[in-house]
Amino acid sequence: MSKEIASRQEDYSQWYNDLVIKGGLADYSAVRGCMVIKPHGFALWENMRDALDKMFKDTGHVNAYFPLFIPKSFLSKEAAHVEGFAKECAVVTHYRLKNDPNGGGVVVDPDAKLEEELIIRPTSETIIWNTYKDWIQSYRDLPLLINQWANVVRWEMRTRLFLRTAEFLWQEGHTAHATQTEAIAESRQMLEVYASFAEEFMAVPVIRGVKTESERFAGAVDTYCIEALMQDGKALQAGTSHFLGQNFAKAFDVKFLNNKNEQEYVWATSWGVSTRLVGAIVMAHGDDQGLVLPPKIAPLQVVIVPIYKGDEQKAQLDAKANEILADLKRLGIRVKYDDNDNARPGWKFAEYEMKGVPVRLALGARDLEKNVVEVARRDTKEKKAVELDGIAQYIDGLLLEIQHSMFKKAKEFRDEHVTKADTWDEFVKLLDEKGGFISAHWDGTAETEDAIKEKTKATIRCIPLNNPKEDGKCILSGRASSERVLFARAY
Amino acid sequence: MSKEIASRQEDYSQWYNDLVIKGGLADYSAVRGCMVIKPHGFALWENMRDALDKMFKDTGHVNAYFPLFIPKSFLSKEAAHVEGFAKECAVVTHYRLKNDPNGGGVVVDPDAKLEEELIIRPTSETIIWNTYKDWIQSYRDLPLLINQWANVVRWEMRTRLFLRTAEFLWQEGHTAHATQTEAIAESRQMLEVYASFAEEFMAVPVIRGVKTESERFAGAVDTYCIEALMQDGKALQAGTSHFLGQNFAKAFDVKFLNNKNEQEYVWATSWGVSTRLVGAIVMAHGDDQGLVLPPKIAPLQVVIVPIYKGDEQKAQLDAKANEILADLKRLGIRVKYDDNDNARPGWKFAEYEMKGVPVRLALGARDLEKNVVEVARRDTKEKKAVELDGIAQYIDGLLLEIQHSMFKKAKEFRDEHVTKADTWDEFVKLLDEKGGFISAHWDGTAETEDAIKEKTKATIRCIPLNNPKEDGKCILSGRASSERVLFARAY
Repeated sequence: MSKEIASRQEDYSQWYNDLVIKGGLADYSAVRGCMVIKPHGFALWENMRDALDKMFKDTGHVNAYFPLFIPKSFLSKEAAHVEGFAKECAVVTHYRLKNDPNGGGVVVDPDAKLEEELIIRPTSETIIWNTYKDWIQSYRDLPLLINQWANVVRWEMRTRLFLRTAEFLWQEGHTAHATQTEAIAESRQMLEVYASFAEEFMAVPVIRGVKTESERFAGAVDTYCIEALMQDGKALQAGTSHFLGQNFAKAFDVKFLNNKNEQEYVWATSWGVSTRLVGAIVMAHGDDQGLVLPPKIAPLQVVIVPIYKGDEQKAQLDAKANEILADLKRLGIRVKYDDNDNARPGWKFAEYEMKGVPVRLALGARDLEKNVVEVARRDTKEKKAVELDGIAQYIDGLLLEIQHSMFKKAKEFRDEHVTKADTWDEFVKLLDEKGGFISAHWDGTAETEDAIKEKTKATIRCIPLNNPKEDGKCILSGRASSERVLFARAY
Repeated sequence: MSKEIASRQEDYSQWYNDLVIKGGLADYSAVRGCMVIKPHGFALWENMRDALDKMFKDTGHVNAYFPLFIPKSFLSKEAAHVEGFAKECAVVTHYRLKNDPNGGGVVVDPDAKLEEELIIRPTSETIIWNTYKDWIQSYRDLPLLINQWANVVRWEMRTRLFLRTAEFLWQEGHTAHATQTEAIAESRQMLEVYASFAEEFMAVPVIRGVKTESERFAGAVDTYCIEALMQDGKALQAGTSHFLGQNFAKAFDVKFLNNKNEQEYVWATSWGVSTRLVGAIVMAHGDDQGLVLPPKIAPLQVVIVPIYKGDEQKAQLDAKANEILADLKRLGIRVKYDDNDNARPGWKFAEYEMKGVPVRLALGARDLEKNVVEVARRDTKEKKAVELDGIAQYIDGLLLEIQHSMFKKAKEFRDEHVTKADTWDEFVKLLDEKGGFISAHWDGTAETEDAIKEKTKATIRCIPLNNPKEDGKCILSGRASSERVLFARAY
C-alpha cells in the first residue's frame, strides 16, 4: 500500500513535507537549509523552466550568466538594497585549505585570506549593473533584455523544503531601458508573463497587484507581484517584477547618450520566480493520497500498468500496451509502461498517485477481450472503462480537461476565500476561522501596516491592479481610506 | 569595418581572447577569475547543453540538483580526493554581514561564524555519495543514473576565459552500480557519448584514451578522456569519465544488499564536461576574421542582410527576405533578417563573420531581378549566387555540408599532427617545431613522466583505447616499453 502520509486536515505542515519527500520531489541534505532536488522534482522544475524560458524568449529576452560571487563593497552601493540583502548571506573569506598540522583532515589556510570578502549572490542586481556600465554607452545599446537562470543563497534561519531554503534555483531578469515608460511597461509585461504561466501551466490562479512600500523589493520604486492561495488559506507570493527606476544606474553610474545627445541614467527592471513555485504546486493541488500535478508540466503524464497472470497474458498485454505507448508518444505525451514485475499493481497505483501522475491506464486481460482499458484520473480519482479504439486521442483530450479542471477547482477555492471585512473584529475572526485573502480598508501608513502584522501576523499581500476606488475607514485606525487592499497570512 | 583582432599566427593567445570578447561570447568580470558569459556565448552553451542533455536522457539518465556547499569534513573522507580538490577552493566561513560600526558600509559579523566551514563545490562526489547512502539499500535501487547541471568553483591562480576560470558551468554525472563490470561499461559509454558529441556537434575530432596514474582524477581507479587538438598544436582535454571503483562508497559507507543477500559496497562512476568546450570550439575553428561556429550548435545559423537604396527597393527586399525567412524557419533553421538601418552592409558582414554565423545571405535589388541571392559560407569564405527557387532546401543542405567540412578540416589537421618520435632529440624537436600529439614509448613510471614534463612541459595526454602493442624503448630512460602513448603540451 501507499507510504504513510499525514492528513492535510490534521497536520497541514507535515502533510506538505510528506508530499515533497515521499512524492520524490526533494530530500533534506547534510547542509543546513539546503535541499537535494530529486529526479522527479527536478524534471518538474525543468518543465517549468522550459515553459518560462520560451515565454521570455518570445518576449525578446536572451539568457546570459554572471558570477556567483559579489564583492562585498558592491552590496553597499545602493542604500536600500544593502539593508535588504547584505545581512543574512554566505560570506567567502578564504580561498585555500591546507592539511591540518595536527593531523585532523584539512583546515582553512590563514594565509589565504581574501582582501575583500565575496558574497554568494542573494540576487544579482549589483554585479549585473556593474557589468552593464561597460555594455551601455548610447540609446542604440538599449533596451538590454537579459535573463539569467542561476542558484542564489539567502541564509534563512527557518527553512521549508522549496518554500524557503538557503540555496534555491531561480531566474532573474535584468533589463535596461532608455525611458521610464518603457521600463514600467517591461515590469508590467513580465508580471503578466508570470501570471499566465502560473494560471496556464501550474493551474494556480493568481492575483496581480503591487506591493506596499514596506513589502517592496530593496532598491525598487515599485514591486509588482502575483499572489496565490494555498489550501490552508495562507497566501504565497509566487513571483515579483520590479520597476527599479534609476536607482541601480545611479549606484553604478550607468549613463547613456540619449537621442538628444544628452547623458542620462538608464532605467531598470528586475523580475524573478524560483523553485518556490514547486512548493506552490504541491500546496495548491495535493491531496491525502499525494501530489496532484498539472498535466502541462507533469514529468510523467500517463502511466500504463498491466494486470495479468502468467507469461501468456503478459505477452498479449505487452503488445497492446506498446501500441498505446507509441500512439501516445506520437502525440507528444510523456508516458511510461510500467511492467516491472517486482511490484504488484496495487503498489504501483499508490506509488503513481503519490507522485501525482495525471492519468493511469490499468490494462487487464479481461479488458483486452472487451477492447477497453480502465482510465483513472488523478485529480478527481474517477475511473472508467474506455474503448481502446481512439484511446490516444481520448487521453490527449483528457489531459487538457484535467488541466482546465484543476485550474477551475483552484480558482473556485480561491474566489471563495476572498472576503471583505469592515471591522477589526470581523477581520480577526475571518483570519482565524476562514483564512484566505481579506479585502479591507487601510489608512495607507506603514505604522498601521506594522501594527496589523504585529497583532495578527497578517500582511498586506498587494493592492490589486485595477483596484476599484471606494471610500471607507481603516479597519485598525479608523482613518479615511480610498481603496481596499488584500491582507493574508502568508508563507 | 571589423573590430581589430590579433592575428592567429602572430599572437595566438591574444587572438583567442579577442575572439572570445569581440565575438560576444564572454567578458571579464569584476570578480577575480570569474567571467560573464554574454548572450551569444550563453546561447552557444545552451545549444551544447541541450544536445548533451538529450544524449544523457537517451542513455537512461535523469537530472537532479545537489547543494552548492560541501561541509569541509566531507572532502577529507576520500584520501586521494582530498589531495586533489581540498586545496584551492572558495571557503564560506560566515553567514552574516552587519553595518560597519565605523560607518564604512558592511563588515563580516564575527558572531556569525559557521561551526564548520562550507566549501563551494569544486566537484560533487562527496555530497552526492553522502546522499546516495540514504537512497541505496538493495540491488533493486540500482543502477542510479543521475546527472547534474551546475556551477562549480576551483580557485585557479592563472585563469583564461572559458578554458580555466574560477567559477565555471558544467554537468557532472554520478552513477551507482551493483557490479564492477556495469560501472566500467557506464564510464566507457559516457566517454563514447562525449566523443560523439565533440565530433558530431562541435566538429572537433577527439582521441579516446585512458589517463596515466599521475593524470587520473583524484579518487578514480581509471580516468577515461577525450583529447582534442587546437590550431596552435596544443592539446585540450575535452571531457573525462571516471571509473571510481568502490572508493566513494567506502568513504561514505554506501552498501547494498546484493541478489545473494550479502552486503556489498556500491560501484561508482562520474563524468563531466564544462564551458571549457566553448573555448575548444573557438580554438579549433576560429580564423583571423573571428569565430567560425559549427552549424549544429551555432546560436544563429543564417543571417540575411539586405542591400538597397531607398524605401522602394527596401520594401521589395523585405517582402522577399521575409519569404526566405519563413521558409528557413519552417525547416527549423535559426535565422535572422538584419534590416537595421543604423549599420551599413559591410559593417554587418564583418560583425556576423566575427560572431561566426555559418551562412550569410546578401540580398540586393539587382539579385532580385535575376532571381538569385549571394550566399557566403563562413568556414571557407566562398561566395556564390544561388537561385532563389528552392533556396531554403539549398541552405539546409549547405549547413550540413559546412558541419561535415569543418570536421573534415579539423580532422585532417589533427591527423597531420600525430607524429611518432623514437629518440629524445626527435621528441623535443617535434614538440618545439611542429607541436601536436607525439606518439612515443614510455617506460610506464611516474618518475619518467614527471621528468619529461619537467624538461619539456609535455604531458602524457592519454594511452589511446585499443592501442596497438609494440615493443620499444622509452624515449627518456631507454627502458623497455610495450606500447606508445600520446604526449603533448596542453591547455
